Amino acid sequence: MQLKLEHFNIKIGQHKVLLNVADARELGVNPGDRVRIRGHQSLSAIVDTTDDMVPPGTLGLFHEVYEHFQDWDKPVEVVPAYRSKSVSVIKKFMDKKPATQDEIKILVNDIVEENLSDIELSAFITSSYIHGMTDDEVEWLTRAMIESGDTIEFDTHPIMDKHSIGGVPGNKISLLVVPIVAANGLLIPKTSSRAITGAGGTADLMEVLCPVEFSSQEVKEITEKVGGALVWGGATNIAPADDKLIRVEYPLSVDPYYQMLASIMAKKGAIGADNVVIDIPVGPSTKVPSVQEGQKLSRDLINLGHRLGMNVECAITYGSSPIGRKVGPALEVREAMKVLESMEGPNSLIEKSAAIAGILLEMGGAAPRNRGKEIALETLRSGKALEKMKQIIETQGGDPNIKSDDVQVGQYTADIFASADGYVIEFDNKWIIEIARLAGAPNDKGAGVSIHKKMGEAVRKGDSILTIYAEKEFKLENALTTAQRTNPIVVEGMLLRRVPGTYGFQ
Amino acid sequence: MQLKLEHFNIKIGQHKVLLNVADARELGVNPGDRVRIRGHQSLSAIVDTTDDMVPPGTLGLFHEVYEHFQDWDKPVEVVPAYRSKSVSVIKKFMDKKPATQDEIKILVNDIVEENLSDIELSAFITSSYIHGMTDDEVEWLTRAMIESGDTIEFDTHPIMDKHSIGGVPGNKISLLVVPIVAANGLLIPKTSSRAITGAGGTADLMEVLCPVEFSSQEVKEITEKVGGALVWGGATNIAPADDKLIRVEYPLSVDPYYQMLASIMAKKGAIGADNVVIDIPVGPSTKVPSVQEGQKLSRDLINLGHRLGMNVECAITYGSSPIGRKVGPALEVREAMKVLESMEGPNSLIEKSAAIAGILLEMGGAAPRNRGKEIALETLRSGKALEKMKQIIETQGGDPNIKSDDVQVGQYTADIFASADGYVIEFDNKWIIEIARLAGAPNDKGAGVSIHKKMGEAVRKGDSILTIYAEKEFKLENALTTAQRTNPIVVEGMLLRRVPGTYGFQ
Repeated sequence: MQLKLEHFNIKIGQHKVLLNVADARELGVNPGDRVRIRGHQSLSAIVDTTDDMVPPGTLGLFHEVYEHFQDWDKPVEVVPAYRSKSVSVIKKFMDKKPATQDEIKILVNDIVEENLSDIELSAFITSSYIHGMTDDEVEWLTRAMIESGDTIEFDTHPIMDKHSIGGVPGNKISLLVVPIVAANGLLIPKTSSRAITGAGGTADLMEVLCPVEFSSQEVKEITEKVGGALVWGGATNIAPADDKLIRVEYPLSVDPYYQMLASIMAKKGAIGADNVVIDIPVGPSTKVPSVQEGQKLSRDLINLGHRLGMNVECAITYGSSPIGRKVGPALEVREAMKVLESMEGPNSLIEKSAAIAGILLEMGGAAPRNRGKEIALETLRSGKALEKMKQIIETQGGDPNIKSDDVQVGQYTADIFASADGYVIEFDNKWIIEIARLAGAPNDKGAGVSIHKKMGEAVRKGDSILTIYAEKEFKLENALTTAQRTNPIVVEGMLLRRVPGTYGFQ
Repeated sequence: MQLKLEHFNIKIGQHKVLLNVADARELGVNPGDRVRIRGHQSLSAIVDTTDDMVPPGTLGLFHEVYEHFQDWDKPVEVVPAYRSKSVSVIKKFMDKKPATQDEIKILVNDIVEENLSDIELSAFITSSYIHGMTDDEVEWLTRAMIESGDTIEFDTHPIMDKHSIGGVPGNKISLLVVPIVAANGLLIPKTSSRAITGAGGTADLMEVLCPVEFSSQEVKEITEKVGGALVWGGATNIAPADDKLIRVEYPLSVDPYYQMLASIMAKKGAIGADNVVIDIPVGPSTKVPSVQEGQKLSRDLINLGHRLGMNVECAITYGSSPIGRKVGPALEVREAMKVLESMEGPNSLIEKSAAIAGILLEMGGAAPRNRGKEIALETLRSGKALEKMKQIIETQGGDPNIKSDDVQVGQYTADIFASADGYVIEFDNKWIIEIARLAGAPNDKGAGVSIHKKMGEAVRKGDSILTIYAEKEFKLENALTTAQRTNPIVVEGMLLRRVPGTYGFQ
């Protein structure tokens, strides 16, 4: 069927065209079918139909399809196309039938090329959420994710990397781990994410200090120059399938286990990592509620690493409380810089960073067995880590002379006070994140929360438990109102409950 | 956040708005989240984000949202909205946790109101495909589907209805069953579908004779006037959730079992049916491959009917061959009209129609037990069924004096010939449907296939096995080429295979 073209200047994340219902019936295609567009560029697209958006004889092109045309004044020949091979692969996942390596590769490529509809993608996510995947399938998925994007090959080895499973507020340790490891002569090209549901990802934090958007080639160059990089993975085209899957997982609030494994390891594989440490915070409001589950996840990550030729160690860490006392990009950067400058700062942050960095130093041969943490702490104390951080900041285009006190935090602040004398006995990570987000984090870099009293600490009535920071007054009010209304920080005296005796007066 | 409005004149089947990424970050919302739009009409919509389609400060409205605004020159106040309650219900289906009746009602209403994204809908379909549903959930789903659309209440009872599970080509029996039942004084307001993957649904067929698009009120009036109606369900707003679910099921080629039950019975419940017969064709290329599965389906339909206060009987029928010898709207109408006019026609069509009609006559009290089929055949023979069909055609706005020979079929024809003497031993329903569709059915009413030799029949080399009809020459050629290339009709002599003896020459 010959159709003239009409352009709808809207990106919808899939190759889609709009047919008048009359033309669709004449072609014998239904919404969700595909058509092939013959022309100087031959491509296929998913059909949607309309009574009135395009007239008969016209093909409406959404932006992703339109981009393929140079000469769109000419009519095109449109024919029904076979169902995408990927859809039959998705059907296999729905039916819990094994998929082959080639099939998974085709599927991942179609995901990256935006050749699949939301309906198809969601069926894949939902099926793998319900049925899981075999070890082979996870390996093939990971390999396909690596191959469908940019990869970096370094001339020197080993390449080090770390990853933290999310869920803990204030987990700013990469700002310390990367310079410690690089200061000891190892290469660590760290790509990080921006927060989606959190108060600040490492990329959001680092952006307070310098640009974080680089191509994978630039990441390579930065790393080769100064030993470490702290960049936003989303700009690199490394394992790009991940972002396409997150777009579908997010509205369903799911993160299918085996896809999480594949996504983590694909990013490590794509930069050619030899040695990887995965930080697995365990606690009721993290992604991993129990140590048992942390151990299973560890085994699965180590096993997958082995299949991919990577040396993986996992660190199961305490995840019931924030790391350090600051949550939100600028506040966290300040806290981390202060540690680099003077070792001043919360124990939880210094200890955890040194432990993780220490494992990496041992794996990379820069520290003898069992002495990694000690050397990591020494790297901090000596100022070498600060020196390295300055080099990284400068190489990424920031000001290397920035001091922790120079980092601007939100000018509007308000406190939450203890309602009684006693001890902080409940403290909800999710609540902290929500307050920080309401105050503007991660978009408003200066917004966040400073925690004065953590779980188990003694307070007196009227003490400030936390301070909320915001860049905009109305956001501060929003956050404060919600904080006061929903306050889950329970302060109780040491006497939690009096249990009366059974026999008369005691 | 105050935003001015921009209208994208595109329907996308969901309430969606487009935010610039900067505004989305400022609001703290991600793609897939919802925002509430405050204005004289307060409503919520699913967020998509863009770098460049709308500038900061502007909210792009797709058509479904735009429709809610009278005064769209004024800026609106946009705030983040809570996740839809339906999404948590979908999450329950994903996790195979029981849902309550209220939750299912909320979900179905959101489906009908197009408040859910394709991602969410597909997660629901995929989950119920994988996990199935409990009897309670199916009942509640059916009730919610009934309540979310129009319902018809007749003053007289009983109300009769029939439904055929799809998959058999040429299953035109409603064109005979409805007039037979109505001619015996019973009310039968039959809503039917158009073909999606078939060569012609009952609505496509009836449309050859008269209009089929009526409101549910008009269906009631037609039925009260002449006892029967044969209309397209899609125009009535009866159980409208079904079409929204089919839009998602179709690209995945799935028809989750329990949703099929609910969809069938919701349409019956909505018209107030008291007695229903379900025709379940069983055969390798129908939806129900074995008699065992047909029996399970029967039990489930009868059970669901009981829960809804409907009397259901099921008829497991032979589905390995087409019903009658014609496939495609006009060809099928011709064949059915000829039976009504003169009882001339294939046994398979007359027998099946009379059997199904007979059960309905018995259920409705218009025939004594075990005499329904006999009375149905008598109704055909006496011309009363033809008389009733003419009344229905006239009441729906068609020409009651139309004769079978007046029905125009495609002028372009071609034959498929037997390649040898022998017997037709294989005959594939799906292939017949594919050829009829390639020839133009169901859109080109005159297109289709006339079958001269069915399974088991003797042929001589050069005999025509079937004739393809088309309204357009290129479609005929398309169909013919495919038919010749893929021909699955196997003709073999009676000697199928010679098995030589074991010991020397015999």
